Amino acid sequence: MITTATTAHERMLFAKTAARSVGLLSDAQKAEALRAIASAIVRATPEIVAANAEDLYRGRENGLAEGLLDRLRLDEGRVAALADAVREVAELPDPVGRILDERVLSNGISLTKVSVPFGVVGSIYEARPNVTVDITALALRSGNTVVLRGGSAAERTNAALIRTMRDALAQCGIDPEAIQSVDEFGREGARELMRARGIVDVLVPRGSAGLIETVVTESSVPVIETGAGVVHIVLDATAPLEWATDIVVNAKVQRPSVCNSVETVLVHQDAASRLIPTVVAALQAQGVTVHGDEAVRHLSEDIVPATEEDWSTEYLSLHVSMRVVDDLDDALAHIRRYSTHHTESIITEDAANAERFLAEVDSAVVMANASTRFTDGGEFGFGAEVGISTQKLHARGPMGLGELTSTKWLARGSGQVRA
Amino acid sequence: MITTATTAHERMLFAKTAARSVGLLSDAQKAEALRAIASAIVRATPEIVAANAEDLYRGRENGLAEGLLDRLRLDEGRVAALADAVREVAELPDPVGRILDERVLSNGISLTKVSVPFGVVGSIYEARPNVTVDITALALRSGNTVVLRGGSAAERTNAALIRTMRDALAQCGIDPEAIQSVDEFGREGARELMRARGIVDVLVPRGSAGLIETVVTESSVPVIETGAGVVHIVLDATAPLEWATDIVVNAKVQRPSVCNSVETVLVHQDAASRLIPTVVAALQAQGVTVHGDEAVRHLSEDIVPATEEDWSTEYLSLHVSMRVVDDLDDALAHIRRYSTHHTESIITEDAANAERFLAEVDSAVVMANASTRFTDGGEFGFGAEVGISTQKLHARGPMGLGELTSTKWLARGSGQVRA
Repeated sequence: MITTATTAHERMLFAKTAARSVGLLSDAQKAEALRAIASAIVRATPEIVAANAEDLYRGRENGLAEGLLDRLRLDEGRVAALADAVREVAELPDPVGRILDERVLSNGISLTKVSVPFGVVGSIYEARPNVTVDITALALRSGNTVVLRGGSAAERTNAALIRTMRDALAQCGIDPEAIQSVDEFGREGARELMRARGIVDVLVPRGSAGLIETVVTESSVPVIETGAGVVHIVLDATAPLEWATDIVVNAKVQRPSVCNSVETVLVHQDAASRLIPTVVAALQAQGVTVHGDEAVRHLSEDIVPATEEDWSTEYLSLHVSMRVVDDLDDALAHIRRYSTHHTESIITEDAANAERFLAEVDSAVVMANASTRFTDGGEFGFGAEVGISTQKLHARGPMGLGELTSTKWLARGSGQVRA
Repeated sequence: MITTATTAHERMLFAKTAARSVGLLSDAQKAEALRAIASAIVRATPEIVAANAEDLYRGRENGLAEGLLDRLRLDEGRVAALADAVREVAELPDPVGRILDERVLSNGISLTKVSVPFGVVGSIYEARPNVTVDITALALRSGNTVVLRGGSAAERTNAALIRTMRDALAQCGIDPEAIQSVDEFGREGARELMRARGIVDVLVPRGSAGLIETVVTESSVPVIETGAGVVHIVLDATAPLEWATDIVVNAKVQRPSVCNSVETVLVHQDAASRLIPTVVAALQAQGVTVHGDEAVRHLSEDIVPATEEDWSTEYLSLHVSMRVVDDLDDALAHIRRYSTHHTESIITEDAANAERFLAEVDSAVVMANASTRFTDGGEFGFGAEVGISTQKLHARGPMGLGELTSTKWLARGSGQVRA
């Protein structure tokens, strides 16, 4: 099922037209469409893996780093996992048509605020074919159509996936123009997508801080920013040694490559000699390199001197920075300066300090005595995760399907006029 | 109370710093601050009116149109009305600290989603001094600080109002840097405000479609668009004559200068000869000029021929356009093409058509059998109106104080780590 649209602009218009019928699909129709997509992806495994092999070949020729090649690679097992993820989204409750507010005015007009699809969701992302399938499933489940712009290194894989998904929609009697890609128009396609205000309702960039910054700066379409995490843990004067050690190690080591892993540990000076040697030793035992200020280096061996740059670096790897602070005020000031407003946690037995931290830290998720790794749509019980928003408008923190909907007020009257 | 900040950038940073303490003020403190501002405005009436006289003098010298001069003008009565509006906002419930979601995870972590202030609210608007006071009151009531950029024609009036409000804050022991203006930096100040991503959390433009378009296009700060209203009423085949007449006349005549007044009436062909003569006569009796297509002109006298431009014009005056449509599909197609997605209403006795209209029209407020003039925060029972959002992100339709808040997840644990 190849679209007849020949320009990026025309493709976006097709997605907008398709949004009218997709927005009116029932819960059952949307779930069935996703199950059909999942089955079609499994059936098309040979074709998808073959297209992926071409991308991998080209990637190797172009000297793509091994990490990037690994993210790009699809084998039979990974294709099956893509399909499973779509089936999971199919089972989630319909986020459309929820009644969010109801009131009857004194003149008898009945007002209802309901959740409605955005319409067209755009996404700009890097060469990870799973995002192609992921964002399409989430958008369709919430009654939206999609315009995709993936990394050029995954172009053939994405084309095979999109063809497969469009075919599956058509076989369900759903307009296949609901899934569009502007990949073949290169950078100009991405630029048109960022300027498609009035056609595309919201843009969700996914990828590196650089990509997100570009989209946020250049887009006139409203953006939901899913940003980087320079995540802090504060070890307060009363932090229990066991909690401090377990939480810092978990937050750094359990999955260092993700945005909710910890970057910087701030230790209250009154607890420094009690906590730092044990916490550092536990980190180092797991292969973590600790970048410390002078006070930390005074208390432990094998500490790399921390530079100014360390405090604003999202390592995404087995590195952590550590600093001794004078008090909670000093810790809060450090966080204000360097945090990306994703997640921060304090470890303390002082309830007043915990509550002060929760109230004053201006981040999407603020924790007391828990690992920052819990900032996650799945852990929060949302079923699927659209991303973790670090902006304050529309959605903040882990986003579920509900965050891919807007609202509409319905007013039902019987001839009322305003006095 | 004059700020020591000497550049637009520095002023915005002062507002950001002040947001930390303002965001933690209690309900009572915020209400008291607004009451103090209201009293201070009344006390400063002579000073404010004198500053306004200077702006008016300059405006007349510069050939400002009489309508603009009237919007700019403040006399004793209007200053008192400004203060009254602030007192009304003071009485509204605190939108901060509402618990929006609560859940306890199976591992015992307690999660709470609470409403929090955005931080810094920016506003760019035209020469209407009431916006200066209005937006400041709404922002402070919701725990935010403000950076204002008003029209240069109101510069002295705004300066007097801002000085008065800052003084009042200082006397309440609240950081007066919570109220900032970049007026004296002219267009460059506006540009800096639009680029202050990371300092200013949200921008609310207020004014003409042109001003809003500029802000939406140029701003990297997230914008809440309060847009123009090209508002439609559909008279369906079964529309009762009395409802049709009353609602169209009310929607056009009751206050033609506002965004929820009707621009275009679409009449089902089966009802055209029954409805049009009476509706048109009722409009004309109120001084309305009707711009009609050929079918309308065939049924009534004194109709101005409608041009293509009429269908996309927000008149904001006693003009209305009228067209005969084949059926509901034709009406929906017209609305899709020309609507600004503000408010549309259908007048019908056919329940199925009413529900189809409510479901399919993609506007902030969709009505059946009611006047479009009801799209209003006050009418909806919000107490105050921040504006009427025509965008789909964050807020859609009439916005109350709650729409000037963001959210934050608080997680309270006891040492939990992720498995």
